[in-house]
Amino acid sequence: MPENEKTDFITVPDQGLFFVPLGGVGEIGMNFALYACDGSYLAVDCGIGFAGDGLPGIDMLLPDAEYAARVSKKIKGLVITHAHEDHIGAVGKLWRDLKCPVYVTPFAAEMLETRLDEECLLGRVPVVVVNEGDYIDLDPFEIELVSMTHSIPESSSLLIKTRYGSVFHTGDWRFDDAPVVGKAPDYKALKELKSENILALVGDSTNVFVDGDIPSETDVRDSLTEVFARARGKGLIVTCFASNVGRLESIAAAARENGREVCLLGRSLWRVEGAGRAAGYFRDYPFFLTDDEASGYTPDKIVYVCTGCQGEPRSALSNLSYDVGPVRLKKGDVIVFSARVIPGNEQAIANVQNRLIARGAELVTAKDALVHVSGHSGRKDMQKLYAFLKPRTAVPVHGEAAHLHEHADLARASGVKNVCLIADGDVLRLAPDDPETVGKVKTGVMAVDGKKIIPLNSSVLRQRRRMIDDGTVVATVVLNDKGEVLGRIQFSAVGLIENDSDEFAVLEDAVKAALSENAEYAADDKTVSDAVKAAVRRVVVETHGRRPMVDVHLVRV
Amino acid sequence: MPENEKTDFITVPDQGLFFVPLGGVGEIGMNFALYACDGSYLAVDCGIGFAGDGLPGIDMLLPDAEYAARVSKKIKGLVITHAHEDHIGAVGKLWRDLKCPVYVTPFAAEMLETRLDEECLLGRVPVVVVNEGDYIDLDPFEIELVSMTHSIPESSSLLIKTRYGSVFHTGDWRFDDAPVVGKAPDYKALKELKSENILALVGDSTNVFVDGDIPSETDVRDSLTEVFARARGKGLIVTCFASNVGRLESIAAAARENGREVCLLGRSLWRVEGAGRAAGYFRDYPFFLTDDEASGYTPDKIVYVCTGCQGEPRSALSNLSYDVGPVRLKKGDVIVFSARVIPGNEQAIANVQNRLIARGAELVTAKDALVHVSGHSGRKDMQKLYAFLKPRTAVPVHGEAAHLHEHADLARASGVKNVCLIADGDVLRLAPDDPETVGKVKTGVMAVDGKKIIPLNSSVLRQRRRMIDDGTVVATVVLNDKGEVLGRIQFSAVGLIENDSDEFAVLEDAVKAALSENAEYAADDKTVSDAVKAAVRRVVVETHGRRPMVDVHLVRV
Repeated sequence: MPENEKTDFITVPDQGLFFVPLGGVGEIGMNFALYACDGSYLAVDCGIGFAGDGLPGIDMLLPDAEYAARVSKKIKGLVITHAHEDHIGAVGKLWRDLKCPVYVTPFAAEMLETRLDEECLLGRVPVVVVNEGDYIDLDPFEIELVSMTHSIPESSSLLIKTRYGSVFHTGDWRFDDAPVVGKAPDYKALKELKSENILALVGDSTNVFVDGDIPSETDVRDSLTEVFARARGKGLIVTCFASNVGRLESIAAAARENGREVCLLGRSLWRVEGAGRAAGYFRDYPFFLTDDEASGYTPDKIVYVCTGCQGEPRSALSNLSYDVGPVRLKKGDVIVFSARVIPGNEQAIANVQNRLIARGAELVTAKDALVHVSGHSGRKDMQKLYAFLKPRTAVPVHGEAAHLHEHADLARASGVKNVCLIADGDVLRLAPDDPETVGKVKTGVMAVDGKKIIPLNSSVLRQRRRMIDDGTVVATVVLNDKGEVLGRIQFSAVGLIENDSDEFAVLEDAVKAALSENAEYAADDKTVSDAVKAAVRRVVVETHGRRPMVDVHLVRV
Repeated sequence: MPENEKTDFITVPDQGLFFVPLGGVGEIGMNFALYACDGSYLAVDCGIGFAGDGLPGIDMLLPDAEYAARVSKKIKGLVITHAHEDHIGAVGKLWRDLKCPVYVTPFAAEMLETRLDEECLLGRVPVVVVNEGDYIDLDPFEIELVSMTHSIPESSSLLIKTRYGSVFHTGDWRFDDAPVVGKAPDYKALKELKSENILALVGDSTNVFVDGDIPSETDVRDSLTEVFARARGKGLIVTCFASNVGRLESIAAAARENGREVCLLGRSLWRVEGAGRAAGYFRDYPFFLTDDEASGYTPDKIVYVCTGCQGEPRSALSNLSYDVGPVRLKKGDVIVFSARVIPGNEQAIANVQNRLIARGAELVTAKDALVHVSGHSGRKDMQKLYAFLKPRTAVPVHGEAAHLHEHADLARASGVKNVCLIADGDVLRLAPDDPETVGKVKTGVMAVDGKKIIPLNSSVLRQRRRMIDDGTVVATVVLNDKGEVLGRIQFSAVGLIENDSDEFAVLEDAVKAALSENAEYAADDKTVSDAVKAAVRRVVVETHGRRPMVDVHLVRV
């Protein structure tokens, strides 16, 4: 993630139409954007990012909402394109900065409820439930929810109409002529949008490196049916993203074809099941089994659907691989990985897979059969959409630098006149005149650290990294007014020295020696502390090869 | 990595020929194996593993050498197949357990020197320099070094002859008919080995999922020459593994063809350059430039070779991506990634690449051109080797469970009679009679933590993980004999609470309140400590949502 360099920030001008991404442009995750039209704002999506290895103890990332908070009085509403965490997951944490109505479809509303509840915001946030195809009037914006297929129900592109013209904000999307939930794309309607004078297409770049045709979810359903048929008589486990309701329906259909019931393992699957049923999904499948209920069936009559397709620790699949949890794996059981590998999770997934293989399981992955399709448009779909909409301007978003650059090339090759490569915080004027980046607003990444939200450069995080690399020691020394040590010198070296180690005796000797060497300066706190620090550090460098942070609790009585 | 379950360990029997892997079978890395013949031992390779995310602060992993140490008197020698860290990197750390002569080729000897020096073992370890093709007589073993191609010079398979027959221990290998350093394979000699009565092939599984022909290093050299030609007039940077001397020669050849000098950036490149020259490589390239020397040339006359192809922080390439270090990147500069992606490093590499792209660099990766080939045999080469040697037994090693299982299938399909799927610590009898796992010896993984070597289940590591997830607080309370607090109550909460936070005042109030509530038990250390701990924990749970470890330094004066 690029850190903010010293920049002069601007306020978005009061005249014109602007796109101001506050997250998701330069990274995959933390999607959060503002549109500004003549001084009024529309917010689109408000998602989290996932913390990488360099951020120990951090639960998730949030876009910096400082600019949004500054203009919150002018924000007419927050429209959520779909219920994935990187689009909706930060609403609970950041709503107090926005304080505007939140527009969501029924399924997203169900998924949002938990998040708002966690933040004690239930009933306080004006949540407006809208449906695909609806119009939302947030003068000077009129927003049409254009239904698109994605790997979660009710994903919409937004057609944002203003007096300057319209912006097509794709959200996450693909064309699927035979989706399992939702409708096939209305190509005719999309083509007609051209007449809307599409100023700009602000588009998903995730799969810009994917060539060729991407099969339909119905193809996956059929392929799963075959895979399940080949597993006849064996234990059968499928892991997929919990929020992929269409995939769950595909699995349920394939199970039914093969005379198996579906048992869900893992909390997030049950959460999605609940949200899905409340929003009208799973109508053909009136119930799924709990592990308790499934224990009454023979293994060849069940498909277990597990959380943990990304190798998450303590997920249902990870538990299976360690032979803990309610279900026991047997040699020859078939485990289907019906999900993609999110970059960064390769090794965690491989570790789970290796443990499962070592227990005798037979794996079926996307390399072996069509058990997964992406919910993002590949190059072909992207080219098709550019051909339908003929936007004057393309703004690649939802990608890392590599994706954005490649998307820019694709847009140019698709005949788009203006292609704008921008980054989080850029203020891109879309109208009037040709598009132009007119300045930057403050943006950045915040880290969720338990209940706290801290900046990435917080000293707490720096210390945490040093604690890991160099260790930390706290030494307590009590001195009387003559500078004599009272009581016992005590040490804590959590995560550095074993509790019962005789190194503590060595530390004590070293500190005592340092104190007597500096006896003449005993009245000076800093000299005493520094001498203790140096002594502790010397011992630890010698024995551990680490230069720890040392805190001295010097008490004078 | 599988943790040891409770097992009854055995001692390897005194009669027969046994293979006892102590590392590298079930993981990629930490290659370390014993062969036992009638009570005498031969050690093969002694490498490190790389610590994953779950091991904060750990520099590298070592195989547990406890069993080797137990039988060290009977170990005739340690033969190193090649100089990669996962085969040679643990010699310095573990030699004191083995105390046997170490047999290495000239290049490996150069590379080993640094490691031995770091451990104060230079001159103390009997290092015997041998050449490819040599025989090593370690009665009851006679070992022939069979030259093979790999991504480092002087990689050998070992033909281990015993009175029971011969074992072909492949090490890391591939067939390359046109390598840039070393010789093309002697297929005729390999075919003749069949007459040796090959009891077992103990073989590399790394690339068992790779189908099709793997091009030669000469093809890479030619392709690099074309890539460099297309970069005419531009800045040109190549990143590759430092130890890949053949690749460095390919780059140097491509540079020369294009009228460019080679400048090395990064310490490990210079280390390999030194070792390589000492062992007789780089003869056609009498010098490489330092960055200082290169600054006298225009950018179009230089190829910079950088460390950091795996996205390593503070490597030359990472520095370039952050615009620090001696060389400045310019828009349009071409950066060639002439290396594979080691599993687990995907995101780190993508992050570097994205930063480089964001700075305007044009990347050339293995997706764009033939700028890298693997040093490991794919399926075709493996099948060929089985056909040449016709071993009675195949023992897949050098792989995770997935690789070992796939290799086992390939060996069976190649007509091998006995295929032994084993794991670290298994004692596999190879002769007499059909192969059989007769028991286990203790094995495991040790973590290098600065100067310390600690077990993976050490309390220090557990505490370090808890420090990250939950935080740690040290509270110092000084009490007089009446149980009154003397001096100031002090706190350290490194990596949890910012140094200047007013939370410390809240903590102090909470601790004071807890002490006065428990005043009647003031004489009891445990009651006082527990009360302080509980009070601190309550505050931190409330404000941070974390349940920290709390150490109380209770001093009585």
